[in-house]
Amino acid sequence: MNIDMIRAAADRLAGHVRKTPLLTSPFLDEIAGRQVWVKPECLQHTGSFKFRGGWSAVSAMDEETRKKGVIAFSSGNHAQGVALAAAKHGAPAVIIMPEDAPRMKIENTRALGAEVVLYDRAGGESREAVGDALSQDRELTLIRPYDDPYVIAGQGTTGLEIAEQANEAGVTDADVLICCGGGGLTSGIAMALEADAPGLRTRPCEPEEFDDVARSLRSGGIEKNNATSGNICDAIITPAPGELTFPIMYRLCGPGLVVTEVECLHAMALAFSRLKIVVEPGGAAALAAALFHPDEIEGDNVFAVCTGGNVDADMFKTALDRFA
Amino acid sequence: MNIDMIRAAADRLAGHVRKTPLLTSPFLDEIAGRQVWVKPECLQHTGSFKFRGGWSAVSAMDEETRKKGVIAFSSGNHAQGVALAAAKHGAPAVIIMPEDAPRMKIENTRALGAEVVLYDRAGGESREAVGDALSQDRELTLIRPYDDPYVIAGQGTTGLEIAEQANEAGVTDADVLICCGGGGLTSGIAMALEADAPGLRTRPCEPEEFDDVARSLRSGGIEKNNATSGNICDAIITPAPGELTFPIMYRLCGPGLVVTEVECLHAMALAFSRLKIVVEPGGAAALAAALFHPDEIEGDNVFAVCTGGNVDADMFKTALDRFA
Repeated sequence: MNIDMIRAAADRLAGHVRKTPLLTSPFLDEIAGRQVWVKPECLQHTGSFKFRGGWSAVSAMDEETRKKGVIAFSSGNHAQGVALAAAKHGAPAVIIMPEDAPRMKIENTRALGAEVVLYDRAGGESREAVGDALSQDRELTLIRPYDDPYVIAGQGTTGLEIAEQANEAGVTDADVLICCGGGGLTSGIAMALEADAPGLRTRPCEPEEFDDVARSLRSGGIEKNNATSGNICDAIITPAPGELTFPIMYRLCGPGLVVTEVECLHAMALAFSRLKIVVEPGGAAALAAALFHPDEIEGDNVFAVCTGGNVDADMFKTALDRFA
Repeated sequence: MNIDMIRAAADRLAGHVRKTPLLTSPFLDEIAGRQVWVKPECLQHTGSFKFRGGWSAVSAMDEETRKKGVIAFSSGNHAQGVALAAAKHGAPAVIIMPEDAPRMKIENTRALGAEVVLYDRAGGESREAVGDALSQDRELTLIRPYDDPYVIAGQGTTGLEIAEQANEAGVTDADVLICCGGGGLTSGIAMALEADAPGLRTRPCEPEEFDDVARSLRSGGIEKNNATSGNICDAIITPAPGELTFPIMYRLCGPGLVVTEVECLHAMALAFSRLKIVVEPGGAAALAAALFHPDEIEGDNVFAVCTGGNVDADMFKTALDRFA
């Protein structure tokens, strides 16, 4: 895993990925007490940065392997990112989802061209068993959500863009806050910034009680969460940092920030009123940290990556009801 | 008024205006029956394209005149666009608003650095009388919302970007739908496309019963609306096309499209779920036309400019409740 892999991914993504702009608002700057730069990856294809990693992985495969197809386990943003990336390459995609996943997510993933295979989570069926059988039968290639070098490289292209855009804005010294689950995006961005903008410090942001990355960075070893569900920030709830991603984060990232669910809802409402973007709870963690944890941040500038916008209307209305 | 004025405005705006991306979604393409390209000017500074015209006008003034200040009549997007453009030039801005304007809009305009002067609309006070007295006392320069060459030139920079982005996307032949009030944006874009993308046809979109531009394009003369309020698309409700903008639109624009309020709410909900952007009712008219009036549009591609996102939470929730 090195910067050349991220640059190679950027070459493969060119013309296919959306280069998201940097957004700002004087109203957010006033709350944060410093200049806030928002990178809205909710505007990326399929509504999250996951399309970058999906495209990177699918585009790196040799033609023979790709024609057989890819497989992913996900009920969320990774599913849609892989599905669209595969479809645009003309490759079959199988997505394994729990049969109690939200109907909308199942339908969206199907509509993006993937074959959705449901498993009975409540009845104790193992998704790995379902997936392994399919993979062997059809020689599908598994695309992991974060512990995959090509996926990390794809997510890291976000960091190349941040480095370029920070340079254009004349900012050479700042914390860069990232909503962090397994660490694919965070580790990729950290490597990109190390190379292209060494004055920018990457820092993971997580919800309270699911701060495995923050704790792992403190202890120096991989720490697990006690639970794997029960938080509105579902997009960034993972069991533990990845085997590939953690060493990169440990070497390059500043201390993790921890936010509450209520702070995420508040950040969603401010992104609505001040930036005109739709952000999901887990995609708002970094913005929440930038706005509501000013004493834990250094410098006159802060970057926050809003990682996704796949939120249903009811949750969005909850944020508006409380804070808009 | 000519293309050189638009190119000069683009030079003055460079580095200050946000170049908004083109957004797409396969789900919207399916509804429309063709490829839909959305230009989200809701992501522009102050939440609407109006910042372009404001910056263009303020930046074109000579230093002496600018130091005395500018004045505008507006309770909406033009007010915020002019306020921020003036503040960034260090110029005083006076915005005349009715005292019954929404408190949020008054506060936002003040927070952007403008002096807000309220007049008693209900009591019959004339905003022109209030404004004229102030202008004469303080030698302020009036910036009109659309019938001003520098404002039209600023809005036209949106068209230069569309031409460039359409070219990059390989689209040379399409209708370009614009939410239209007085015609500043529509006429500016029409001139830019005439020069840089002559296969793209500019077409104004308006709400039912406020279709003065569509009727004027048919009759060949300036037609008025019967009312000046009473529609959720308040941002694009104007009495009639402008004296400067109408001849340009008459020469260059295709037939107008007319949408319902319900279609605008539906388009807002789809922009939320499929593009992750916040659009106000009047800013959704063009997307509504693209999605729900396919038989009135030609070609395999259509562009829709989402002109603004300054919508309060209650109206946004109405859209989500009905359609998301």
